[in-house]
Amino acid sequence: MTGEGEHAAFARRVALAVDAARLHARQLGLAAFGGVATGGVARQALTAEELAARRWLVADFAARPGYRVGIDAAANVHLRREGSAPDLAPVLTGSHADTQPLGGWLDGAFGIVAGLEVFEALDACGARTRRPIDVVMWTNEEGSRFAPGMMGSAAYAQPQQLAQFLPVADAQGITFGAARDAAVADLREAAGQGGWAWRDVPLGGAAHAYIEAHIEQGPVLEACGAQVGCVTAIQGVRWFRVTVEGRCAHAGTTPLAARDDAQAKAVRLAHALLAYAEQCGDERLRLTIGCWDCSPGSINTVADRVVFTVDMRHPEPAALDAVQALLDKALPAGARIERLQDKPTVRFDAQLVQLARQACAQLGLQGRDVISGAFHDAMPMAGFCPTAMLFAPSIGGISHHPDEDTRIDDLAACTRALAWCVAELAGPA
Amino acid sequence: MTGEGEHAAFARRVALAVDAARLHARQLGLAAFGGVATGGVARQALTAEELAARRWLVADFAARPGYRVGIDAAANVHLRREGSAPDLAPVLTGSHADTQPLGGWLDGAFGIVAGLEVFEALDACGARTRRPIDVVMWTNEEGSRFAPGMMGSAAYAQPQQLAQFLPVADAQGITFGAARDAAVADLREAAGQGGWAWRDVPLGGAAHAYIEAHIEQGPVLEACGAQVGCVTAIQGVRWFRVTVEGRCAHAGTTPLAARDDAQAKAVRLAHALLAYAEQCGDERLRLTIGCWDCSPGSINTVADRVVFTVDMRHPEPAALDAVQALLDKALPAGARIERLQDKPTVRFDAQLVQLARQACAQLGLQGRDVISGAFHDAMPMAGFCPTAMLFAPSIGGISHHPDEDTRIDDLAACTRALAWCVAELAGPA
Repeated sequence: MTGEGEHAAFARRVALAVDAARLHARQLGLAAFGGVATGGVARQALTAEELAARRWLVADFAARPGYRVGIDAAANVHLRREGSAPDLAPVLTGSHADTQPLGGWLDGAFGIVAGLEVFEALDACGARTRRPIDVVMWTNEEGSRFAPGMMGSAAYAQPQQLAQFLPVADAQGITFGAARDAAVADLREAAGQGGWAWRDVPLGGAAHAYIEAHIEQGPVLEACGAQVGCVTAIQGVRWFRVTVEGRCAHAGTTPLAARDDAQAKAVRLAHALLAYAEQCGDERLRLTIGCWDCSPGSINTVADRVVFTVDMRHPEPAALDAVQALLDKALPAGARIERLQDKPTVRFDAQLVQLARQACAQLGLQGRDVISGAFHDAMPMAGFCPTAMLFAPSIGGISHHPDEDTRIDDLAACTRALAWCVAELAGPA
Repeated sequence: MTGEGEHAAFARRVALAVDAARLHARQLGLAAFGGVATGGVARQALTAEELAARRWLVADFAARPGYRVGIDAAANVHLRREGSAPDLAPVLTGSHADTQPLGGWLDGAFGIVAGLEVFEALDACGARTRRPIDVVMWTNEEGSRFAPGMMGSAAYAQPQQLAQFLPVADAQGITFGAARDAAVADLREAAGQGGWAWRDVPLGGAAHAYIEAHIEQGPVLEACGAQVGCVTAIQGVRWFRVTVEGRCAHAGTTPLAARDDAQAKAVRLAHALLAYAEQCGDERLRLTIGCWDCSPGSINTVADRVVFTVDMRHPEPAALDAVQALLDKALPAGARIERLQDKPTVRFDAQLVQLARQACAQLGLQGRDVISGAFHDAMPMAGFCPTAMLFAPSIGGISHHPDEDTRIDDLAACTRALAWCVAELAGPA
């Protein structure tokens, strides 16, 4: 056991060994897997592109002494750097290597590359930690090939959830279970060929802490000039599908008073919601009407049916209750609401968040508390072990898009903070 | 030449020979062509179903003495009942046999069956008219297979328009020209087999008058208890496509103030238009937003593009100018408007409309002046020869739908008024 000061000095040494050029090179290397000539990355969960990317990511380390590769029953890849006390619960970091159908080069990918850079920094220092450290590549965070997202981290945190994920099929009818089996076989084969040290990884295996680096995917850090976001929570989100029914009628022959116009009713309802969001003055509220379908969809026919979605988010449930009450109140005749999702706000571990703030302070980085607007693998993990996240600023707040980007300096700063936290948590041997 | 009183008495005799049961039977017979087991009629322009229907419709008369069948270069079928003065311009009536992809049994069909019932009534009276009378089956009024609609009547009224219609292809790539050729060959073959008297019909052949019976397709006549609508005009219509551009963003991470939300901007604009239409208090105004597409159409992504359509109609251009001015004024940044169509109000021939009113008065029918909300073949014909229309009430105002219906008594009343007008215009021999 070592004292607090010794930990901090150790953490500082490791953090300063983070190398921006090495980080950048690995990040670019990863982007080549599924990289699209016209920009962006297409590397959906458990596709050939993702499997190849994951093999490439572990191959660099698997041959070094003190590293072990493993994969669990949700096809999460775990790359372990052994500690001096191998029976202690490991410190976990990582993120996901899968992308949206056409995504950017950093979403998820950065968290893995940052974790591997922590390994590089430890190796460069010749440092040994007391606890093992695992860089985890969670499976299917995006949920765009198999719905819902965060399957891998959810199954790790709650192994009983796996059974419901296995039969989920993608657009080609391939099940998550079949894709999982292929991914496990693929990594085992690579391990056999490479002579890698192997470790069987159970779902739900104990973890000392989980700390994930990620790009912000929003404009807040950039707007306030911060280098690192210390993420205190993931805001709550509720999804609704609103169906407004009316009656088809001829656009020329039917007086307005004689119509039951689904489009007009839906526009009025949507306008009430959006006007409220704009006028309520709460800048933490997010309200999005992302989908809107109307039928029959003919220029000269009054619509008989409009279906639109509402995505509402806020850290405080009462704020979402207020929007929902407005939705209920403004709902016109012939309309109904289905709740598709209701995820309460997840608050990260106070001590871990404090550690993240300390990392920034110790390393002279401009840190700032932020709330995550998006889901991350840290969301299910927060219910499993002490969890927190570190954000790097996103240029223009753009994400899920080929233009997604972050300054290399900012990626390195966030990685340095991550290295500090991981080294502090794992402790010197 | 006969005097006014003699014409009216002749017209009355013919009108009273209209037989509701015979009319109903032919209407039902026609509905079997393309009739769908679950309701409604699918008989799009120049399909096998429509060609068979048109052969069946003319076959009853083509073998009788004094009738001649013909088809013009737009595949409009003309069934002529000879007059005693064959060189005088004919009186034209009729409508279209094509339907929407799934339409009702009366739209268009009624105008043809009513015209043929006028022939039946004339035959039943043993009446001979001075002018020839043509029942015309116009091609592709609906425009749902080949766009735009009213091709047949437009080409008849303005033959130079035909050239631009011929290359128009349907969803299977079949051109209007090829479908036209097949339709002409089909009818010629039927005429040869049936030994029908044939007449070559030129586009643009002189017409004394055109009077078309049609269902109202709206609720006005039913609401006021009228049996027959004397149509004074077809209201003007303007079609617009509004494209609102924004910027994709993550629904969770992007504060409202940092968004350029195409959906929110489009909803605000559409709401302004609909609220104006509702509040302006002009019950003649029609405003319809029939299509609405948003992209990327993801529940948790702020939309970067919304495209919606506006169909606005009114008999007075100034009323449409006012709506258009509002649309221009409320147009948000990143939005643009394209005008897809601008058809000014078409006013029907005052003397013919007066004749229609007289028919109702003479026959003791509840007639009422109405404005047509929909397009009809009478629209292009109005620029070609004196033109008017007669409407039968639509139950519930429903049209372009399997539920489209009219009471048989009302169909018969409208047909009686048509017979009166046609006989009056053609005059006794």
